[in-house]
Amino acid sequence: MTSPANALPAVLDRIDADIDNSVKRLFDFVRIPSISTDSAYKDFCVAAAQHVAKDLDGLGFETAVRPTAGHPVVTAKSNGATASNTAPRVLFYGHYDVQPVDPLDLWKSPPFEPRIDTLPDGRKIIVGRGACDDKGQVMTFVEALRAYKAVTGTIPLDVTMMIEGEEECGSKSLFAFVRENAAEFKRDLALVCDTGMWDPRTPSVTTSLRGLLYEEVTITCADRDLHSGVFGGGAANPINVLARIIAALHDQNGRVTVPGFYDGVKELPADIKADLTALNMTPESFLGPVGLKVPAGEKDRMLIEQVSTRPTCDANGIIGGYTGEGAKTVIASRASAKISFRLVGDQNPEKIRDAFRTFVRERLPADAKVEFINHGCSPALAVAYDNPALAKARAALTQEWGTKAVAVGSGGSIPIVGDFKTVLGMDTLLVGFGLDDDRVHSPNEKYDLTSFHKGARSWARIIAALAG
Amino acid sequence: MTSPANALPAVLDRIDADIDNSVKRLFDFVRIPSISTDSAYKDFCVAAAQHVAKDLDGLGFETAVRPTAGHPVVTAKSNGATASNTAPRVLFYGHYDVQPVDPLDLWKSPPFEPRIDTLPDGRKIIVGRGACDDKGQVMTFVEALRAYKAVTGTIPLDVTMMIEGEEECGSKSLFAFVRENAAEFKRDLALVCDTGMWDPRTPSVTTSLRGLLYEEVTITCADRDLHSGVFGGGAANPINVLARIIAALHDQNGRVTVPGFYDGVKELPADIKADLTALNMTPESFLGPVGLKVPAGEKDRMLIEQVSTRPTCDANGIIGGYTGEGAKTVIASRASAKISFRLVGDQNPEKIRDAFRTFVRERLPADAKVEFINHGCSPALAVAYDNPALAKARAALTQEWGTKAVAVGSGGSIPIVGDFKTVLGMDTLLVGFGLDDDRVHSPNEKYDLTSFHKGARSWARIIAALAG
Repeated sequence: MTSPANALPAVLDRIDADIDNSVKRLFDFVRIPSISTDSAYKDFCVAAAQHVAKDLDGLGFETAVRPTAGHPVVTAKSNGATASNTAPRVLFYGHYDVQPVDPLDLWKSPPFEPRIDTLPDGRKIIVGRGACDDKGQVMTFVEALRAYKAVTGTIPLDVTMMIEGEEECGSKSLFAFVRENAAEFKRDLALVCDTGMWDPRTPSVTTSLRGLLYEEVTITCADRDLHSGVFGGGAANPINVLARIIAALHDQNGRVTVPGFYDGVKELPADIKADLTALNMTPESFLGPVGLKVPAGEKDRMLIEQVSTRPTCDANGIIGGYTGEGAKTVIASRASAKISFRLVGDQNPEKIRDAFRTFVRERLPADAKVEFINHGCSPALAVAYDNPALAKARAALTQEWGTKAVAVGSGGSIPIVGDFKTVLGMDTLLVGFGLDDDRVHSPNEKYDLTSFHKGARSWARIIAALAG
Repeated sequence: MTSPANALPAVLDRIDADIDNSVKRLFDFVRIPSISTDSAYKDFCVAAAQHVAKDLDGLGFETAVRPTAGHPVVTAKSNGATASNTAPRVLFYGHYDVQPVDPLDLWKSPPFEPRIDTLPDGRKIIVGRGACDDKGQVMTFVEALRAYKAVTGTIPLDVTMMIEGEEECGSKSLFAFVRENAAEFKRDLALVCDTGMWDPRTPSVTTSLRGLLYEEVTITCADRDLHSGVFGGGAANPINVLARIIAALHDQNGRVTVPGFYDGVKELPADIKADLTALNMTPESFLGPVGLKVPAGEKDRMLIEQVSTRPTCDANGIIGGYTGEGAKTVIASRASAKISFRLVGDQNPEKIRDAFRTFVRERLPADAKVEFINHGCSPALAVAYDNPALAKARAALTQEWGTKAVAVGSGGSIPIVGDFKTVLGMDTLLVGFGLDDDRVHSPNEKYDLTSFHKGARSWARIIAALAG
């Protein structure tokens, strides 16, 4: 058997030679309107799952379309010999479902009729709902496997695939599926292709996803709205109470004041910090496009740390009292805010939720009551910086793109990835080829042809590196 | 000519004897649906004005229905000799317009078909829109004048009447009307019957109305809504900024922190304070009915001071970011709040508005911009505690009701009354007979028959006292 590393040049050639067919296959996948959140598209979600299963079946995988309470999960096992005993058994995760397409009238062409277009700067793009998120990204991995199969006759790693159909509506059924089948899906390493590049030239491994604690806080004082002329000065005002609580959440230096909040937040290793510094994320480049100039987070941190590797607290919404036109002299009965915390490292979301609720209760004046609703409580996810797979992936990406691959934290989250760590006990390598202008979740979603093509080549290199 | 004081017993008898006719006349007035805010009722407003003018004409007044940019103002002058040279020339102000009646289905009988009803505790009430506010209250004064006219053949004071038709929608046209005709309406004292009693047994002179500064504050940071996963920790958050500003408006003792805010706030005279203390307004009695227990204002003040004679600051409304169901990880572009200040004594609303705006601007972090909209800027109104008319009115009310009349501040405001002081240079005596359960502005508005009857008798006594 040819080793994957020896086969790599031929595999890359095969990807290049087959790119037009790869695009056609992606088009076939994109044509299935697998909108998961809208029950009218239920049958199309099943069709998309069957489409994926059939494709993987053709590559020699043992596949199944497995039912859940919601849309089915496609599973596939290569059952192949690995090239070496040290190569990790991997679980590749992706999703076949897509976001809704409204507002439809903003699309320049029908969202499920994929096409190639050319941007003013000459870049070729694949346009269509799911072209990037996540059909195009998933297919970069599948096309790499296909090329190995064509060149070597086999899948060069022990690969298990898990392609779900509810990522765009919260992966509701997948959490139970993973728990119930933990033994089956516990491998050595998870691979996910649902993230982006640093910029169109610079590849990236996402080494952390911030966790999220999201709380809705409702303060109630009087049992009805009051006239501020009659009660003003005598009655507790829930808006004022809520404002004081939100204001108290940060100190003068932008640090969050909830006791124990920073427990589990680690300093970056020097080399990673040096890499981040070298990226030179400036306020002009990052904040300028949205009309801002001055980093607003912890005063002693670089902007790139503030938005990727440090925990934060933001009020995402607030409402209370009279919010219509003009004036009404009312003291509201209640006011509420949605307050979320982005978490990093080993911060414990349950502990912070409890500490936050205590923090709020300790600041309630007499006559104010509080209710909490939790809308999310997931820990941060991080690849250990010394995980050997991380170094291999960065090296492979650097070779493919000719620019040093960066390891960056992402502020966002992918719901199930936390469970890969906590339930299945494995790290996840997040490698993706999306770009900031891909318009995922928006009209005219696109994926650069270069992302698709070099994405497949990148996975071919990563697979060779992991297998070696 | 019989002096008003000598005529008083006969005048009071006349009011008693004529009460059924007085009620019928009030019914005729209430039947006119003079809803000022709804242009569909424009002609009824004119009809109500003409109704009042005709009634006063019959009492010997020189009357006019005078046009404004909105609904007309009824003016009437007694042109009578006053009983003595020291008697004040008075301007009586009231309004013939009423609030809308919706929700109509909550009325137990049609709002403009007035009727007498009996409460479970035996009180007789007049039910109908405007029965109290302000048709019933205005007619207490008119019925007192009618009784004097019947008994003595004359109006015993130099009385000018100004009955407007836009009080329920902000007295928009009246401000210009008063300014343009200042010389005509500048008298020695204004009388208004649009306030309430302390309780059903205790009459009251309202000696102050709090002023109102009402500002809408909008904070803008980024030029669009941002994803908190991507920008959280780096981008300024207008909700957090606004919360910090609102929180900073009060210190730990409940005092407002805007510089210069308390300039012009005077301590109460000892005797007035003693009267207020004797009223024994308890948290249980005042806050209990709305589900509260603990006075929330300045810590070193009695509750009755907090809600009537002290200035306050309340956020009346706040909105920003995502306020729907569930969670959205957004950092809003903008957030806004409506913030009002109740003013007392000689507090200068323009100065406080400027100081407040400076206060906000000084607390804006980099990248935050602010816009202000003013929705009100009127000074407090207060009768000088040593105004002789005040003592006379209290004595007259005490005699009529058999319970010592109290002099209290009101938290509310009557828009034009501030201009009586600032434009016309006269104090206003606010005497009214409304009760807390009158449901003014709500379905099933009522006025106690006792308020109406003894209200007319009270005015007869006050007129005699002022004329003497």
